[in-house]
Amino acid sequence: MSAIEELASELARLPGIGRKTALRLTYHLLKQSPEQARRLANSLLTLSDRVRPCTRCFNLTEEELCVICRDPRRDPRLLCVVEEASDIGAIERAGEYRGVYHVLGGRLSPLDGVGPDDLTLSALLERVREGGVQEVIMATNPSLEGEATALLVQRQLAGLPVSVTRIARGLPVGGDLEYADGVTIAQALSARRAM
Amino acid sequence: MSAIEELASELARLPGIGRKTALRLTYHLLKQSPEQARRLANSLLTLSDRVRPCTRCFNLTEEELCVICRDPRRDPRLLCVVEEASDIGAIERAGEYRGVYHVLGGRLSPLDGVGPDDLTLSALLERVREGGVQEVIMATNPSLEGEATALLVQRQLAGLPVSVTRIARGLPVGGDLEYADGVTIAQALSARRAM
Repeated sequence: MSAIEELASELARLPGIGRKTALRLTYHLLKQSPEQARRLANSLLTLSDRVRPCTRCFNLTEEELCVICRDPRRDPRLLCVVEEASDIGAIERAGEYRGVYHVLGGRLSPLDGVGPDDLTLSALLERVREGGVQEVIMATNPSLEGEATALLVQRQLAGLPVSVTRIARGLPVGGDLEYADGVTIAQALSARRAM
Repeated sequence: MSAIEELASELARLPGIGRKTALRLTYHLLKQSPEQARRLANSLLTLSDRVRPCTRCFNLTEEELCVICRDPRRDPRLLCVVEEASDIGAIERAGEYRGVYHVLGGRLSPLDGVGPDDLTLSALLERVREGGVQEVIMATNPSLEGEATALLVQRQLAGLPVSVTRIARGLPVGGDLEYADGVTIAQALSARRAM
């Protein structure tokens, strides 16, 4: 395989990058100074060496504890459980949440061979048993697998002195009833609140 | 800068990849085995070492001559002039053309500081002067700069025993008159042919 095809097919393995985009990126890099490709290559090589999971919450970090677990201003009584470390970024960008996190590292997915033992469930139970947590907010995705995962966590936490909540489902802000799917509308109706 | 931010900002330098996509790709690579990031990094590192311009037509190749110049079945009397090596791929995919190519390496663009001396014009003139070429097809882009470049080449070739043609402009196949811009419609009208 030629060097161009080789790079293009490696790039095409990335999500959302098709064959044509991969070729376009390759030609772009060929037009740039070799320095740019080298810097990108080095960032790729150091990534997995430097980044590891936070020993407390499994967020990604280059230290022992992640930047949120190290922050004394975060409220440790609120514990938000997410599927992936990237979900933390989405919630942080919303700028509302002041508690801490726990990254499950995935979601229940029998078809992909992901069972309860593949998630960081025992570490989560350990954290809650140690005390100090008042509320566990299940922020797994509102998908079939995300719901099943939330249910599993809720069951495992039953009996512990902690309240388990689930993020609300409904119409997205700025969304349009006309274009919303039926399941979302049904959820939005059944979760209606007094004004 | 963290390793995640570093890779994300390198990826975001690529065309068509914004900040958010770059972060998503970075998290994706973190979920994959480090092997995938390493293979991508190696492809990036070997790219500029292995790939160089064809000594005859300036297409990209890993040999002395590119795959098209080496092919004895290509017709050397037809010479198609393109701006970039990537344009060759687009024409080859159309599967119609059986001649050879010449890559200018850009187009006239005074604003970007690209003048005639930055293109492979003298090599093109040399090829035509050597004889054997009957028709030079100008396939630079149908943009302002592409037209200016085509005009420049045509003037430089004036006096040599070769016909210079320009690829046709008009409505794209499958296109819609209603959504075509005025300049394209005007071109399509003035270039109309008997049915």
